[in-house]
Amino acid sequence: MRRVARVDLNCDAGEGWGSWRMGDDEALLDVVTTVNIACGLHAGDPLIMARTVRLAAARGVGVGAHPGPNDLWGFGRRDLTGEPVEDLATLVSYQVGALQAVARQQGASVTSVKLHGSLSSRAAVDAVLAAAVARTIKKVDESLIWLVPAGSAMVDAAADEGLTSASEVFADRAYDDAGNLAPRSMPGAVIEDPMRCAERAVQMVLSGAIESTSGRSIPLRADSVCVHSDTRNAVSAARAVRAALEAVGVEIAPLSLVVG
Amino acid sequence: MRRVARVDLNCDAGEGWGSWRMGDDEALLDVVTTVNIACGLHAGDPLIMARTVRLAAARGVGVGAHPGPNDLWGFGRRDLTGEPVEDLATLVSYQVGALQAVARQQGASVTSVKLHGSLSSRAAVDAVLAAAVARTIKKVDESLIWLVPAGSAMVDAAADEGLTSASEVFADRAYDDAGNLAPRSMPGAVIEDPMRCAERAVQMVLSGAIESTSGRSIPLRADSVCVHSDTRNAVSAARAVRAALEAVGVEIAPLSLVVG
Amino acid sequence: MRRVARVDLNCDAGEGWGSWRMGDDEALLDVVTTVNIACGLHAGDPLIMARTVRLAAARGVGVGAHPGPNDLWGFGRRDLTGEPVEDLATLVSYQVGALQAVARQQGASVTSVKLHGSLSSRAAVDAVLAAAVARTIKKVDESLIWLVPAGSAMVDAAADEGLTSASEVFADRAYDDAGNLAPRSMPGAVIEDPMRCAERAVQMVLSGAIESTSGRSIPLRADSVCVHSDTRNAVSAARAVRAALEAVGVEIAPLSLVVG
Amino acid sequence: MRRVARVDLNCDAGEGWGSWRMGDDEALLDVVTTVNIACGLHAGDPLIMARTVRLAAARGVGVGAHPGPNDLWGFGRRDLTGEPVEDLATLVSYQVGALQAVARQQGASVTSVKLHGSLSSRAAVDAVLAAAVARTIKKVDESLIWLVPAGSAMVDAAADEGLTSASEVFADRAYDDAGNLAPRSMPGAVIEDPMRCAERAVQMVLSGAIESTSGRSIPLRADSVCVHSDTRNAVSAARAVRAALEAVGVEIAPLSLVVG
Repeated sequence: MRRVARVDLNCDAGEGWGSWRMGDDEALLDVVTTVNIACGLHAGDPLIMARTVRLAAARGVGVGAHPGPNDLWGFGRRDLTGEPVEDLATLVSYQVGALQAVARQQGASVTSVKLHGSLSSRAAVDAVLAAAVARTIKKVDESLIWLVPAGSAMVDAAADEGLTSASEVFADRAYDDAGNLAPRSMPGAVIEDPMRCAERAVQMVLSGAIESTSGRSIPLRADSVCVHSDTRNAVSAARAVRAALEAVGVEIAPLSLVVG
Repeated sequence: MRRVARVDLNCDAGEGWGSWRMGDDEALLDVVTTVNIACGLHAGDPLIMARTVRLAAARGVGVGAHPGPNDLWGFGRRDLTGEPVEDLATLVSYQVGALQAVARQQGASVTSVKLHGSLSSRAAVDAVLAAAVARTIKKVDESLIWLVPAGSAMVDAAADEGLTSASEVFADRAYDDAGNLAPRSMPGAVIEDPMRCAERAVQMVLSGAIESTSGRSIPLRADSVCVHSDTRNAVSAARAVRAALEAVGVEIAPLSLVVG
Repeated sequence: MRRVARVDLNCDAGEGWGSWRMGDDEALLDVVTTVNIACGLHAGDPLIMARTVRLAAARGVGVGAHPGPNDLWGFGRRDLTGEPVEDLATLVSYQVGALQAVARQQGASVTSVKLHGSLSSRAAVDAVLAAAVARTIKKVDESLIWLVPAGSAMVDAAADEGLTSASEVFADRAYDDAGNLAPRSMPGAVIEDPMRCAERAVQMVLSGAIESTSGRSIPLRADSVCVHSDTRNAVSAARAVRAALEAVGVEIAPLSLVVG
Repeated sequence: MRRVARVDLNCDAGEGWGSWRMGDDEALLDVVTTVNIACGLHAGDPLIMARTVRLAAARGVGVGAHPGPNDLWGFGRRDLTGEPVEDLATLVSYQVGALQAVARQQGASVTSVKLHGSLSSRAAVDAVLAAAVARTIKKVDESLIWLVPAGSAMVDAAADEGLTSASEVFADRAYDDAGNLAPRSMPGAVIEDPMRCAERAVQMVLSGAIESTSGRSIPLRADSVCVHSDTRNAVSAARAVRAALEAVGVEIAPLSLVVG
């Protein structure tokens, strides 16, 4: 059994746009140690980004960029597989840079980057896209930590580029035998019960493995545990995950202290 | 008579969005020494920004950010005077940071910032907004040069903040007695004849003054001459302005060499 | 004292966009008799419009179009007063027609039109805009009822054009001595207490007048009472208003039965 | 040989948005007999729609709606195949209704509907989507003519629903052996030479067949010939096609006279 002393807890936030809001950002930011902030192309706008950076800074939560596809209406979840890899990488640089400047304006700085939606789904399995994103992040700021799905093509792409990555696992999502997330459309793919999320988080962090939908044990490196902000019971789930991890002696710490 | 050895020549570019294009960027970038690149909120998108940065870098043209109001449909020209000053400043940091990262990805860097549309019109006369923008630019990157309308409130705001500014004059726009641009809706406000634009540019650079619509001589500091990219005959006008300035011995040089 | 046997109760709904939602539409539609559905330019999208039409049809609630300025990010509340009157009228025809077709697709039809946000604020005092909108609605479908702020320029514009109008009063907004809504930024301009909203609604419907912020009695025709959907306690307020009106013997009926 | 006395000539127009323009609409509308007007979701906005309707009405050109996917940035060409069929049908009703009202405001009316971009590509081969769109058009206005790609699944869907359809052929696009358009990415897929476009148009209209990329003769019903507005030489090609058809005695007439 692999023993992990420290783990980061991350969530997405700042996912409103204009007059619209999504999720209970204040409550979630009281629980997590890293926040992935939407950067304006699938959600988020400059004002919401600035506000979310202030919420994070006031709580000592690490600020992460959460770049997505250029698709506000589809919330970055529509599949846009036809777009060239270099174009998608440019969307990443745009969004990371935008958040960096907004953070500087607020006296804070960005420590990590995590891809959103269909951009993440594609980069998880498309090594060419993963490599292009790794190169881009490194060019924009080589000190950034790339927060990537455990076991995905992004892990290797980061290593090849000499970029620091952190592997995240999902407490509220089911995994298949290949270690990939089961699609949201599959029954049981999203786990809403806070207690089950908490159990799964402890299992993943302490054992370095997760039970797949077919019951197999799949090894997964867990530098960070993600709780989705848009799941029903998101705040309860996040609190339950944190409490359960602390109860078994795991230290919850920002990403920079886990993989820095 | 004030003698100016060097002057920058600037134009806006990258003002398309998605499948739409505006202006003949390649031809204009063959003539100017600084380009103001739209950053996605009133025009421009990440892909067009990257392309425009490459065009500029290939020609040794200085890369400037051209942040505008959050209003794609109105091209940043609709009057949005109700928006809070700090919110508008945040729009600036977002856009400048976005271009900085896109430029880094392309191996280039941003040297200047110029406000667009109704954001510029308001900051030209609203000292509180001008000060907020100056503070923001300084926080984002204090080495940036703020390209501002000659004689506007932005000149003083930059000085108060210790931010380097460069004063620009418009060869293709009429001025009133207060040294402000005559509104576009006024007959004669936009000068389309390339020869007249060129004469006005030489007059402004050599004399440090411009003749207003009522015939008075208005003093104007001219570190840079702007030729609008969306005027009919924009390319001809830009070439004529450059040729006329060179013909009287003025050196055309990037902004960093004029005010750096 | 003027006696009103019947009054309509209206609210805005369908004000989400893409993945975002705003307000508790199902609960509000259980209470009102007319719903003003956002049409895609300041909020609402085709899918949300179709869903809201279905919610209304299932409850026998009258379907109204709620056209606004072309400004999703500003939720149609930014002041865009520079736009030509005929252009604003065209925005109205676009949005009304879009909802008419979406309603037909769902086996329903549109019975009323109410302007949103800064488009309404301007048409309330700008007789030229009010006239242009009246002409447009008549051209698009002369059987439509124009739901207008009581006492506004829109009342006269509808009469001049021979278009049926219905005057609405706001139970949750303070009025000034001229019978106009106090600006939202004024303390006390938005009334959140459901009991006070209910009292005001009864007063307005039974007396045909409202007490202004300075304590004067201002005459106001009340064919419909509006409860905003985005006020805190919106559903409670709507229920309280309806119960209070019914308690004093006022019949709550769709707009077509009140002014048809 | 099948003899066709009359054929319609159609093009897309009104494909600008906000301050952006695309194509030379005035010149194209001097040549065609039906115009497909973008309706705001992939291109076009209410003001451009109104202007294009006026251009068409002034020339006796038939007004058609050109609904597309909800994707302005991608110009409706990004593949969004994951979207539910009923949702896509709702996008069609929204856009058709919007143009109908804008046309009524201008004293004109809509006579046809043609799908745009990836919405058309999918409906050409997806019988379920084609059927849903046919039902939607019929519900919105059963007198509308559905302008569909010759030989596509839309032809059968219209017939099944009792909706009048008109088959269009493309003078400027190559066809494969199944009678489908060769993808734009294929070399030779877009034919830019006006003379070749004209020859192909005459061949298709007179023979009721087209030579595929492999040299086979593919039967194609030609009620209307489309010339794309965004092809280089679009206006020259349209003029050449019209002149060539008239030279061989084909009458060019609006869609309603061809299939009405």
